[in-house]
Amino acid sequence: MGQPQQPEGTESDKPPLRVGMVGYAFMGAAHSQGWRTVGRVFDLPLRPVLAAICGRDGAAVRAAADRLGWATAETDWRDLVARDDIDLVDICTPGDSHAEIALAALAAGKHVLCEKPLANTVEEAAAMSEAAEAARARGQSAMVGFNYRRLPATAFARHMVAEGRLGTLRHVRVMYLQDWLVDPAFPLTWRLRRDQAGSGSLGDLGAHIVDLAQYLAGERLAGVSALTETFVRERPLPAAPTSGLAAVSAAGTGPVTVDDAALFTGRFASGALASFEATRYATGRKNALRIELNGERGSLAFDLERLNELYYHDATEPGTHAGFRRILVTEPDHPYLDAWWPPGHGLGYEHSFVHQARDLVHAIAEGRGPDPSFADGLQVQRVLAAVEESAEKNSLYTPVAV
Amino acid sequence: MGQPQQPEGTESDKPPLRVGMVGYAFMGAAHSQGWRTVGRVFDLPLRPVLAAICGRDGAAVRAAADRLGWATAETDWRDLVARDDIDLVDICTPGDSHAEIALAALAAGKHVLCEKPLANTVEEAAAMSEAAEAARARGQSAMVGFNYRRLPATAFARHMVAEGRLGTLRHVRVMYLQDWLVDPAFPLTWRLRRDQAGSGSLGDLGAHIVDLAQYLAGERLAGVSALTETFVRERPLPAAPTSGLAAVSAAGTGPVTVDDAALFTGRFASGALASFEATRYATGRKNALRIELNGERGSLAFDLERLNELYYHDATEPGTHAGFRRILVTEPDHPYLDAWWPPGHGLGYEHSFVHQARDLVHAIAEGRGPDPSFADGLQVQRVLAAVEESAEKNSLYTPVAV
Amino acid sequence: MGQPQQPEGTESDKPPLRVGMVGYAFMGAAHSQGWRTVGRVFDLPLRPVLAAICGRDGAAVRAAADRLGWATAETDWRDLVARDDIDLVDICTPGDSHAEIALAALAAGKHVLCEKPLANTVEEAAAMSEAAEAARARGQSAMVGFNYRRLPATAFARHMVAEGRLGTLRHVRVMYLQDWLVDPAFPLTWRLRRDQAGSGSLGDLGAHIVDLAQYLAGERLAGVSALTETFVRERPLPAAPTSGLAAVSAAGTGPVTVDDAALFTGRFASGALASFEATRYATGRKNALRIELNGERGSLAFDLERLNELYYHDATEPGTHAGFRRILVTEPDHPYLDAWWPPGHGLGYEHSFVHQARDLVHAIAEGRGPDPSFADGLQVQRVLAAVEESAEKNSLYTPVAV
Amino acid sequence: MGQPQQPEGTESDKPPLRVGMVGYAFMGAAHSQGWRTVGRVFDLPLRPVLAAICGRDGAAVRAAADRLGWATAETDWRDLVARDDIDLVDICTPGDSHAEIALAALAAGKHVLCEKPLANTVEEAAAMSEAAEAARARGQSAMVGFNYRRLPATAFARHMVAEGRLGTLRHVRVMYLQDWLVDPAFPLTWRLRRDQAGSGSLGDLGAHIVDLAQYLAGERLAGVSALTETFVRERPLPAAPTSGLAAVSAAGTGPVTVDDAALFTGRFASGALASFEATRYATGRKNALRIELNGERGSLAFDLERLNELYYHDATEPGTHAGFRRILVTEPDHPYLDAWWPPGHGLGYEHSFVHQARDLVHAIAEGRGPDPSFADGLQVQRVLAAVEESAEKNSLYTPVAV
Repeated sequence: MGQPQQPEGTESDKPPLRVGMVGYAFMGAAHSQGWRTVGRVFDLPLRPVLAAICGRDGAAVRAAADRLGWATAETDWRDLVARDDIDLVDICTPGDSHAEIALAALAAGKHVLCEKPLANTVEEAAAMSEAAEAARARGQSAMVGFNYRRLPATAFARHMVAEGRLGTLRHVRVMYLQDWLVDPAFPLTWRLRRDQAGSGSLGDLGAHIVDLAQYLAGERLAGVSALTETFVRERPLPAAPTSGLAAVSAAGTGPVTVDDAALFTGRFASGALASFEATRYATGRKNALRIELNGERGSLAFDLERLNELYYHDATEPGTHAGFRRILVTEPDHPYLDAWWPPGHGLGYEHSFVHQARDLVHAIAEGRGPDPSFADGLQVQRVLAAVEESAEKNSLYTPVAV
Repeated sequence: MGQPQQPEGTESDKPPLRVGMVGYAFMGAAHSQGWRTVGRVFDLPLRPVLAAICGRDGAAVRAAADRLGWATAETDWRDLVARDDIDLVDICTPGDSHAEIALAALAAGKHVLCEKPLANTVEEAAAMSEAAEAARARGQSAMVGFNYRRLPATAFARHMVAEGRLGTLRHVRVMYLQDWLVDPAFPLTWRLRRDQAGSGSLGDLGAHIVDLAQYLAGERLAGVSALTETFVRERPLPAAPTSGLAAVSAAGTGPVTVDDAALFTGRFASGALASFEATRYATGRKNALRIELNGERGSLAFDLERLNELYYHDATEPGTHAGFRRILVTEPDHPYLDAWWPPGHGLGYEHSFVHQARDLVHAIAEGRGPDPSFADGLQVQRVLAAVEESAEKNSLYTPVAV
Repeated sequence: MGQPQQPEGTESDKPPLRVGMVGYAFMGAAHSQGWRTVGRVFDLPLRPVLAAICGRDGAAVRAAADRLGWATAETDWRDLVARDDIDLVDICTPGDSHAEIALAALAAGKHVLCEKPLANTVEEAAAMSEAAEAARARGQSAMVGFNYRRLPATAFARHMVAEGRLGTLRHVRVMYLQDWLVDPAFPLTWRLRRDQAGSGSLGDLGAHIVDLAQYLAGERLAGVSALTETFVRERPLPAAPTSGLAAVSAAGTGPVTVDDAALFTGRFASGALASFEATRYATGRKNALRIELNGERGSLAFDLERLNELYYHDATEPGTHAGFRRILVTEPDHPYLDAWWPPGHGLGYEHSFVHQARDLVHAIAEGRGPDPSFADGLQVQRVLAAVEESAEKNSLYTPVAV
Repeated sequence: MGQPQQPEGTESDKPPLRVGMVGYAFMGAAHSQGWRTVGRVFDLPLRPVLAAICGRDGAAVRAAADRLGWATAETDWRDLVARDDIDLVDICTPGDSHAEIALAALAAGKHVLCEKPLANTVEEAAAMSEAAEAARARGQSAMVGFNYRRLPATAFARHMVAEGRLGTLRHVRVMYLQDWLVDPAFPLTWRLRRDQAGSGSLGDLGAHIVDLAQYLAGERLAGVSALTETFVRERPLPAAPTSGLAAVSAAGTGPVTVDDAALFTGRFASGALASFEATRYATGRKNALRIELNGERGSLAFDLERLNELYYHDATEPGTHAGFRRILVTEPDHPYLDAWWPPGHGLGYEHSFVHQARDLVHAIAEGRGPDPSFADGLQVQRVLAAVEESAEKNSLYTPVAV
């Protein structure tokens, strides 16, 4: 009988990329799954190590480290940032702390991955973008976490647009529909407070669809006209003010200080028209991020609730034989899929975080600035600011600052 | 061997309703099918008679009468309106002639069915509405042809909203997407000329969705913010300027003087938000009138490309068992369906005109003002006018006149 | 003021085709709509005339004539067949009377349209086929009413198969699912009695799918293996034994003598495999005739509940860009559609009868044998007989007689 | 500045469950992802440890251990089974080695997870089932890997059937459609050789759908009638005979000794009818495992290509308001979902392996026999044997041995 043998291969020989993550709620769990999985599935130039996780509550963060598989725990993000054995800081906190943490991490020479929206204000985002650019010159990478670019279907849609399948673009139609606020008894969590969340459905959902629309279109919005609304203006206070989606109600109520829904139209630089809708009141729609692009030569459509599918209409075919085709984006030649399962064996939401980690690791190893950069995050922030300005000005068309 | 027997029943004993129709293009053919069929399928209080058809080209109108089954032909609508043996004038011409014909018909004591949009201007529509109201006092009926209210699925959706299935309404999301203008070589037909069509996708498609949204919601738009665009501003002249969709191109080009696409957001009186998009450039979308309503207790969704289906989400059910259900609106207890086929045997587009005729005949026989009235048509026109005004004012939110 | 002018054109000058129809229940109403409409929409070589309708109950048939628009009524089909002023006999009765009426009509020199299944037994069907062939030599046409070949989507599917889009065929998968027998309290109507209906879901639904599968495949079944079942074996007697689907129950019960469901597999001559399922117990499925064909080069799929759509997968495209496309079969170049509405304006179930009438009129005028012929109807009957034989022989594979 | 803190919680204190896995191709990668993830997402009674991986090629298995995260590697499964530090043997090899490995592992006191089909013959499966029962008495667990029971949608479907939502069952309709053999140039991999794979689409796909159908129905098949076919009987030899789906062709050809497609009908003990189709030639269908159950009170439908969705028709509702509803099975109260993401954030194929690991760990910790047991795997094998017997006997209905 032989001896057990040690694993042997390229994986364990790779230089490590030691990750320190701040925050361990919904996004922290999703990022953990990304970091834990990426090196086991993709052949990466660096070996991600789940080095440290950080949160304010010591017992809770130690338990999170234990459960999610992080080697150590910190209770002050400043300590995390100061550690020599951390290469990358992954920021999964609410938007009001993004700027401070990211600026410190960049100053400390770390690579940074920052959840979207990049910041709660254009000013903060601009400072972050500037710092990232300076850090770029020192070889650091800073990426904003627009993970929906990393689904095989959206990545492939971008590929199809880039290869000219749509021709001149006429329309981009995007909505992000959820319904978890329909019940007026749902508590006033941090996402409903302007001081923490910056805005409501606009920053949470709208940031995603503005980025995705611009990414897929391959161009930027020139201006917007917007209308926002807060349907339920007073809600019960939650048991714990910083808790996530599944919060518990308590005595007393407080004012909702963010938008419940944001609708806006816009013009792309090329003259294409766009419509956007972000809401948490679309009863029965759970995570319906839907985007459709119509161009002179074809159209593409995607729905996050069916994330392995991409719909494509090829207008260059004879009309009798043409129609929106459902491409099951699970072929080995589709983006990211050579590392996964055979055709038809679909991926899930969390895979976007695995792929985000993959792309970031490659960018770091290759010394490239990652995509989307903090500058991209800033530009999205400027669109959101134009939306808010237009909403305040009775929907007046408002150019996006450049 | 017995003798052949004569038909015997209530049908032939009913008082006739003698219809005179003006126009015999696309809408004329559809209305003809409606008038020809309605009394053979529904048990009506009056017996529609296809008495006369009217068009400017004598040979063409006589051929149309022969083909479509009209008893006589006229070449001047004034002659048609003057005839004693006509009870109802059905106006299927482009919008620029609606007002003149309708006013004359009402003055001559006729019932009137007028295609949408009611008129090309608010002024004309207001005059028509006023005349209709006066005629109403004399027992005449005047209806505007928003035929999409007459599909079983939309009629049933209205029923469900009215019975409170949606609760407090939060969102109405409507689009009407076609693609027949994508090709820049498509000729400059009457629908692309402001003098004849009044507006472009706005009056043609937008009028439908504004009416349908308000009808289903059971309430009216308070104001709108709009953005319109003409993507292709010069097109080849058609062989025959008044020809329909399938026109032939000829030498020379001319300016497109209407909008190609219109996007607008709005607020309902109740505070619900609405988004609208009407376009002829949504490549691959042929007749995609899609509407979704989200309320506190449920949602409804409809797509004209699948017109026998209505999607309903009942938010009062346990979340684990809830979901958008596809109601096949073909049950005998659904609107209009006791007269048609067994469950699952779907109807088509043209049935909306059969049902429109049915409802109008009932209204006339019962001395009721039909629904939608000319006043309803005027109100839709006011919404469209607010859309155009907002578009001219850089999307500024513009109240709908009342 | 001018005089009203008479219609003038080719329509009224065409030679008439005087139709006499036997039966006026569901199928009678559908055929009436077909005959009434076809000449108003299509440019035909003959002008169909609704000359006579026949049924046993004098008052009822006179009322049906009045309502449906037939010029005269008969109470004995022998009288109808004997009339000189009838050119075509359209048989819409239950299957047990098809043979007798058709044979008499053919003997009397009439063209014949006979509802499916052609007969209740192979013997009757063989006699009818033989008589039709003899009549063919005398210039008469005889067609069996497999109307589902006449939908634009199925006709276009046949076109695509014929042009080689699927390559070598591997699979044909067909089901026809309804649910109107799920309730054990549904009464024992004629469709549930072997003496009148011949068989149950097999003859009613199975006949349709056997014909459609063979028509689309362009080849015939070599043999079948079958399993049938009657789930509810005793049902309440209906108020009127011959009434249709929507019957009323009465005192007492009787035995169901036909199958409720029939499942069978088969082999095509080419070696392709087929699976069939016909049932009236598929809860929630109202009229779900679904067919899918898989060939080496592509696939096609169709669902009668969405009858304006055809799904096509082109396997010759790169895998990354391929997928089932939804062809909206409403383009002017699709079968039958140059006569109807613009793209996206869908047709309904009943249009299959309009198109059936169109094709039959053309065949008669051109002296062609119509398609599907009585010989085709006989062959379908032989498949159904093989199904019943296999079911009796414990599912033993049973060749189809030739 | 504080010191980094150690993770602290229940996870690291849990007793380990040391897993040794045999095989590291497609299934090995999927199981690895399951074992790696399960303890990080679910709160388990035991802590899974990826202790050892086994394969015949030393260098390849060491590289696999390195890449997939297994602590040690073995080249002889007998060595793995003999190790004291292994608690569970997870068998991911082709079917011809299942019996030998599983019997040895059970004899060595290990828990066993064995991929489906349980074995290539009923005899082997019976021996395994017997051994598992004996081991059960010694506290060992043995589970067969029908992972498709572990999707939230299928698990919830089972729950709905069990709570009586469907009433008396009438129909179960299942197909598992893939298309990776359509190209005749695809090489003769192990899955196409009877000696290794046992059977073709029958054992690979058919085993899944037989298990899933019986699991969802909550009852077993009494007998079947079958028809199988090998469309392409000679294929190029692969570069490496044991390689997986994505094999490379080489010089020479060899005979395909398994079925390409298997169609069968059957009867459940209760009298419900079933139809099954398993094929690798359904062009354009990548992983279309579709199942529909129709009962007197309702229906359920599922498609693996949209694995987060379950369709449910409630026939106890008024017909006008009823329809198949799309339940997005992503609510926290759905099976497995309290551990994952918010509603609408879908899971993927591989999650079935995470859930399988979860359920097995619970069964082991609680000393329960896991579900599905080897006895369940044996029974599926008996159904497949009856299918093959029926196919050899000209589709004669063949009872399933008990």
